[in-house]
Amino acid sequence: MTVDPGLPDHITPRRVVIIGGGFAGLFAARTLRHAPVQVTVVDRTPHHLFQPLLYQCATGILSEGQIAVPLRHVLRRHENVDCVLAEVTDVDVAARRVIGLRPTGRPIEIPYDDLIVCAGVQQSYFGHDEYALVAPGMKTLEDALTIRRRVFGAFEMASTATDPAERRRWLTFALVGAGPTGVELAGQIHEVATFTLRNEYRQFDPDETTVLLLDGGKEPLAPFGPKLAARAAKALAGMGVELHMGSIVTAVDARGIEVKGPDGTARRFDAGTVLWTAGVTAPALAGQLARRTGAEQDRAGRLKVRPDLTLPGHPEISVVGDLMSLGHLPGVAEVAMQGGLYAGRRITRQVERGAGEPRPFRYHDLGSAAYISRGRAVLSVGPVHASGLVGWLGWLFIHLAFLTSFRNRLGALLTWATAFSRETRRERAVTMARVKPGEDLYHPVPESLAARERTRS
Amino acid sequence: MTVDPGLPDHITPRRVVIIGGGFAGLFAARTLRHAPVQVTVVDRTPHHLFQPLLYQCATGILSEGQIAVPLRHVLRRHENVDCVLAEVTDVDVAARRVIGLRPTGRPIEIPYDDLIVCAGVQQSYFGHDEYALVAPGMKTLEDALTIRRRVFGAFEMASTATDPAERRRWLTFALVGAGPTGVELAGQIHEVATFTLRNEYRQFDPDETTVLLLDGGKEPLAPFGPKLAARAAKALAGMGVELHMGSIVTAVDARGIEVKGPDGTARRFDAGTVLWTAGVTAPALAGQLARRTGAEQDRAGRLKVRPDLTLPGHPEISVVGDLMSLGHLPGVAEVAMQGGLYAGRRITRQVERGAGEPRPFRYHDLGSAAYISRGRAVLSVGPVHASGLVGWLGWLFIHLAFLTSFRNRLGALLTWATAFSRETRRERAVTMARVKPGEDLYHPVPESLAARERTRS
Repeated sequence: MTVDPGLPDHITPRRVVIIGGGFAGLFAARTLRHAPVQVTVVDRTPHHLFQPLLYQCATGILSEGQIAVPLRHVLRRHENVDCVLAEVTDVDVAARRVIGLRPTGRPIEIPYDDLIVCAGVQQSYFGHDEYALVAPGMKTLEDALTIRRRVFGAFEMASTATDPAERRRWLTFALVGAGPTGVELAGQIHEVATFTLRNEYRQFDPDETTVLLLDGGKEPLAPFGPKLAARAAKALAGMGVELHMGSIVTAVDARGIEVKGPDGTARRFDAGTVLWTAGVTAPALAGQLARRTGAEQDRAGRLKVRPDLTLPGHPEISVVGDLMSLGHLPGVAEVAMQGGLYAGRRITRQVERGAGEPRPFRYHDLGSAAYISRGRAVLSVGPVHASGLVGWLGWLFIHLAFLTSFRNRLGALLTWATAFSRETRRERAVTMARVKPGEDLYHPVPESLAARERTRS
Repeated sequence: MTVDPGLPDHITPRRVVIIGGGFAGLFAARTLRHAPVQVTVVDRTPHHLFQPLLYQCATGILSEGQIAVPLRHVLRRHENVDCVLAEVTDVDVAARRVIGLRPTGRPIEIPYDDLIVCAGVQQSYFGHDEYALVAPGMKTLEDALTIRRRVFGAFEMASTATDPAERRRWLTFALVGAGPTGVELAGQIHEVATFTLRNEYRQFDPDETTVLLLDGGKEPLAPFGPKLAARAAKALAGMGVELHMGSIVTAVDARGIEVKGPDGTARRFDAGTVLWTAGVTAPALAGQLARRTGAEQDRAGRLKVRPDLTLPGHPEISVVGDLMSLGHLPGVAEVAMQGGLYAGRRITRQVERGAGEPRPFRYHDLGSAAYISRGRAVLSVGPVHASGLVGWLGWLFIHLAFLTSFRNRLGALLTWATAFSRETRRERAVTMARVKPGEDLYHPVPESLAARERTRS
């Protein structure tokens, strides 16, 4: 399988196919820039998404273009890289071909010598996909725009309310999942209500908004460790966010949410907006790959990899990013970037120097940060733990440092400076669907889910 | 009907209702800021749209938030103004009530003492609404995002093409209507193809793109006068845009467009993307108002007004903006702003000094400008005509001057500086619909139109 480094022109270069243009895929493609290989990045969207800031797009701070850049644009100077827009449905492991569907619905097959799978994970509703009908997740650009429409739409709906209970319901936001995304969304929605929308409504004060953060676990931001988790909980409570830990969701509908509390009692919260960031699950492709290669999947369906990030018995298939299951590494951008880098380097070395047992992947934890609200964040970098303003400055530094690789720092800094210093979020514009009976402009029911709902009831 | 200026607290202030939050409505509301009146702005969207730059949102230069700002936000410090989100369906002229539908579908009635109607106009397909199925117009934020998806999507589709004719079709854009919007779109699409997407596709050179600009008239930008029209035609031709003047559209379908040329011969152009900016028509509300008040409508359905911009026999109803028909005033932002200002001032004066015959409305033409491509624009300010770089600098100055009223100048200037100086448009991100049989991700068929299409065929 190895190819000589000094590749003569008439020999077809080794073909590397990368499934997914997220952090892992992008870093793998970049690492392979100077390797004598032909790289194809397949993704079902044309853009690379800066997912850690999706919540800022959802709450009107950043525009779509500020968190989603065309993959082709990022990789335009990588002459050995081509981008293909397609949804990968299967991999023919024996014939070494990736099988997918073009946006036209036309099938496509892409042969590979090396395959890097970084297709990511999707929102999990723990077997209750019907919750998605009323409680959007936070994984894609579409999700962010749906949440933007619902969050700002909820205040509009509150202004149309004719009785106090209806208004209170529209001013209640229930967020399921107290991980970084849930905590960040809670902080942002609170800020929208108390700061951004100040003086904008005549019939009520948006300040009356209630933000509920519900989670089955013991504390918010549990992966940050007990000390920062406690500080985050304190910061959220101090802002007025209602934390309901140890709460298991038992039902979600268009008017609220039902949970079983820590003491086992059932409780209902009326809420006009329910957002879901509680869990993730691997896409169907992971199951296909497991069946075809005999690889194991973990509880969330992620693929278990060897220390060199390949599937057992298949040194030509690496799995990196959120879809990779290795030890207890978290599903964060940093792990994906380092995994992509490792997979790209491993292939480069093989091509240039021939095969050989590579050093196992080692994750260098550069720290994690979660932004709670203006000037408040929690940050954990090695032994250093910070919260409040120091944490926020750390957050700012980390995000500017990473953003710089593909957006200009100045632009982001200016945007944030504007959002923090003035009573405005610049990206509040939403598009609205037409009214159909039984729904409003801000809450159109997706056709597929509506149909499913109809057959159920 | 007049109310004393020193209004005691227990007297209900005069109620002014403004239908539409465009340039006319916004300027009317602002003018009434210090008048002893209660103002309600009713709009079916929550934002004021800076329509002259819609084409920049459609082609990836500006984000939605940069051209659409929440009306409530713009007017938050106007304590006598409230914004109501509703679609106005009728006006009960006798009872002086505006009748509409809330986003929930719930009916709403708003009483008025004075009514300012500035509901604008919509895209006209000259009796062929089915064209909208394949040829989106350019009036709303939704339109801009649809066009953004189609323009950038066309290049993606070209990259999936399996035969040269199919690729050529996807690389052909047919624009119907050579007014400012059509000319600006043509220039931008040409720039996207030759500049923005440079080096991004491996299978073809986006430079091979053909942009067709079709119009039934004799020259593009006719309202700018023959001299600038000729310069615009020369600039477009110099860039490689194919001008087809004197061409009447006879059919539009998903694969192209058919026209009758100036010599009467039929001709077909294969084009993957057809965009429509050819004509405007008044919304149904104008017809309702004409029936209820006996007002006349012009050919496009606009309401003919008296010299004081009111409807004959109804001094309490002003019609301003694009919906107003007065002499041969063009449907541009400048006329709308001055009309809104006039209507607001007229009411202020009546309330403060009692009724009296006001001076007739006089439009002060501050000039027009159309942006063709980087560093190229045509500009007409009184006796001054300019094109090329000088025209472009004038265009920049005019737009910065007007933008400043509600966005910060620096931000827009920076955005434009980036778009002009670097090979990038920052706002290329699009969302895509799911594949249904017979359509692709970039060209989902709107349900309502698909249903109509089905019943037709």
